[in-house]
Amino acid sequence: MRKTIIGVMGPGQATATDVQNAYHLGELIAQKGWVLLTGGRNVGIMDAASKGAKSANGLTIGILPGDRTDGVSDAVDIAITTDLGNARNNINVLSSDVIIACGMSAGTASEIALALKANKQVILLNSDRSSQSFFQNLNPQNVHIANTPELAINITNSILSKPKY
Amino acid sequence: MRKTIIGVMGPGQATATDVQNAYHLGELIAQKGWVLLTGGRNVGIMDAASKGAKSANGLTIGILPGDRTDGVSDAVDIAITTDLGNARNNINVLSSDVIIACGMSAGTASEIALALKANKQVILLNSDRSSQSFFQNLNPQNVHIANTPELAINITNSILSKPKY
Amino acid sequence: MRKTIIGVMGPGQATATDVQNAYHLGELIAQKGWVLLTGGRNVGIMDAASKGAKSANGLTIGILPGDRTDGVSDAVDIAITTDLGNARNNINVLSSDVIIACGMSAGTASEIALALKANKQVILLNSDRSSQSFFQNLNPQNVHIANTPELAINITNSILSKPKY
Amino acid sequence: MRKTIIGVMGPGQATATDVQNAYHLGELIAQKGWVLLTGGRNVGIMDAASKGAKSANGLTIGILPGDRTDGVSDAVDIAITTDLGNARNNINVLSSDVIIACGMSAGTASEIALALKANKQVILLNSDRSSQSFFQNLNPQNVHIANTPELAINITNSILSKPKY
Repeated sequence: MRKTIIGVMGPGQATATDVQNAYHLGELIAQKGWVLLTGGRNVGIMDAASKGAKSANGLTIGILPGDRTDGVSDAVDIAITTDLGNARNNINVLSSDVIIACGMSAGTASEIALALKANKQVILLNSDRSSQSFFQNLNPQNVHIANTPELAINITNSILSKPKY
Repeated sequence: MRKTIIGVMGPGQATATDVQNAYHLGELIAQKGWVLLTGGRNVGIMDAASKGAKSANGLTIGILPGDRTDGVSDAVDIAITTDLGNARNNINVLSSDVIIACGMSAGTASEIALALKANKQVILLNSDRSSQSFFQNLNPQNVHIANTPELAINITNSILSKPKY
Repeated sequence: MRKTIIGVMGPGQATATDVQNAYHLGELIAQKGWVLLTGGRNVGIMDAASKGAKSANGLTIGILPGDRTDGVSDAVDIAITTDLGNARNNINVLSSDVIIACGMSAGTASEIALALKANKQVILLNSDRSSQSFFQNLNPQNVHIANTPELAINITNSILSKPKY
Repeated sequence: MRKTIIGVMGPGQATATDVQNAYHLGELIAQKGWVLLTGGRNVGIMDAASKGAKSANGLTIGILPGDRTDGVSDAVDIAITTDLGNARNNINVLSSDVIIACGMSAGTASEIALALKANKQVILLNSDRSSQSFFQNLNPQNVHIANTPELAINITNSILSKPKY
C-alpha cells in the first residue's frame, strides 16, 4: 500500500541542462507510478521536476523549509511545511527510497551527504568529476553515476528491485 | 492544484470512543476529497483515522517521528520520515490547513499548543472540560468544540470556506 | 562534570509580575550554580530570566528559533542558533534537567506538554487555575505548583536530589 | 558578552592523526578563550576535541543527536539534547562562528555543506585532495585549508577579526 517515493534534489539556481533533466526525471518517475519528492520551492530543480511529474499525472510532494506555503511550486500537490530551514534536508532524504541529485550546490551536497549517512542509495546525474570523485570516495557502494535521466531511472529501478535496498 | 490537508491528532493509546471517532473522521475527510495527515504510527488515533480514510479511498500522509518506516500504519500511503522525535509535532500542525484533536495526551496537547502558536484553527473533538477551558482561555478565536465527527467536519468546512483562514 | 541545566520558559509578552518572577528565578538559579536555559530572545521571560542570572554571575544559554543572533537577549552568553522555529521548543525541554514555566502562552504550553511527553518534571510558577488543572490532569506526578520563585527553586532542588529524576 | 563559539566537526570513527589534531584544536580553542562546540558524543573527534578543551580549562558544548545524555562525552560541560538525529548537524554549524572540519565522513561532509549553505567560513584540517577540491569548487571564498591545528587557529583568528565574517 505504501507508495514508493523518489527524491530529486538539486539547486534552486540551476543550469538549463539540469532543469531539462529534472523535468524529464519528473515525467519518468510519474510514468513508473512513483511519487516525486522535492524541496518544494518554485525555483530550479524542485520546480522543474515537479512540473515534469505533473505533466505525466504523477503525485508530487514538496518538503518546504519555511513556515508557510508562499514560494511553493504550483506543481506541488502536497506541501509539507516544516519551518526547519535546511534541517529539512534530512527529511528529504530519509523520506525517499532512492535519491537522484541533479546538479550541485551546497544544499544539494548536504542532501547527498545526509543520504549517505543514512545508508541511502544516491544517483548523481550529470555531475562534475570533482563531485563524483568526492562522493564515491565517501561511499563507493551507495553512489551511482548517470549521464541521462533514463539511465538514472534504470538504476533506480534496479535498486528498488533488490530484496533490501 | 494544491491539496487541502486536514490533520487529525490524538494519542497513541486512545479510548474506544476516540478510536471510533478517529476512524469516522478519516472516512469523512476522504469523502470530502481532503488529504488526511497524522503522526503516522500504527497505533491509536493515527492508525484509526488513516484506516477510516482508506476505507473511503482517501489519500493518507504519516509524519513519522523515527528514522525509518518500522511501526508505520499500514493505512499510510505516504510516509514522511523525519527522525525528529516529537519536534515533528510542529510539522504536523504547520502542514495541516485545519487541525482536529481527537482525545488528549501530552503529545496531543503539544500539537494543539503549537497549532495555536502558528495561528491555526483547531477543533477539539470529544474533549474534557479541563482541556476545553484551558485551550479556549489561550486562544478563544481559534479553538472550536465539537461533540461528533460530523460536527467537526462541518466546522472544518466552514473554516476552509472563509476567504483567509 | 556535566552542568545542571534549569530551563525557564515563558511568554515573550509577559505581565510585570511574571517578568519580576523570571528575573528573580534567574538570580536564584545562578546562585545555586546551575546553568540557565531559555528561548534566548530579547523579550519577556527569556530576557528577564537571563538578566537575573547574569546579575548573579550565572551562565546563560539561549536556544534561538531563527537562523542568526539578531534579536537575542544581551544577557545570553551562549547562543544556540537552531533555525527550527517553534520545533526548537522540544530542544529547550529535552536539554533542561527541570523546567519552570513562568506565565502562560501557546508557546509556553507547547513546552510544558513536550516536557511531560518526555517525562520531565515541570514547575508551574504563578499559573492560573485553568492551566494548573489541565496540566495536572495530564500528568499528576510530573507537574508541580509554586507561588513564588523561592518555592520553585526549593522544588527544583528537591527534584534534583532524587536518585533518578 | 556573547561568547565566541568554534565548532569542531569530524567523524565518530577517526584516524589517530585526526584524533590528535582534534585534541590539540580543543586545547588551542580553550587557550584563546573561545567556547568549543561539537556533536557531543563520547567517540572520535567530538570526544577528543572536548577533552583537549577541558585540559586547558575551556568551556565545552555538545549538541547531541539523541533524546538523552547516554553516550555523551565526559568532557562536555553543557549537553544540548536535540533528539533530531542528523538534522542537528545544521544546529552545529549555525551556532558556530567558525567551523573546523577535522577528518572526513558522510556526517562531516553534511556539516561542511550546511555551513557553506549558511555562508559560514569553514577550515578543512588535514583533509584529502578530493575533499579539498570538491568543497573549494563549491565555494572558493569560504573554504580554507590548514595542515596543522596551529594554522587552523590562525585562520580562525583572522576570520574573527574581520569586521563582518
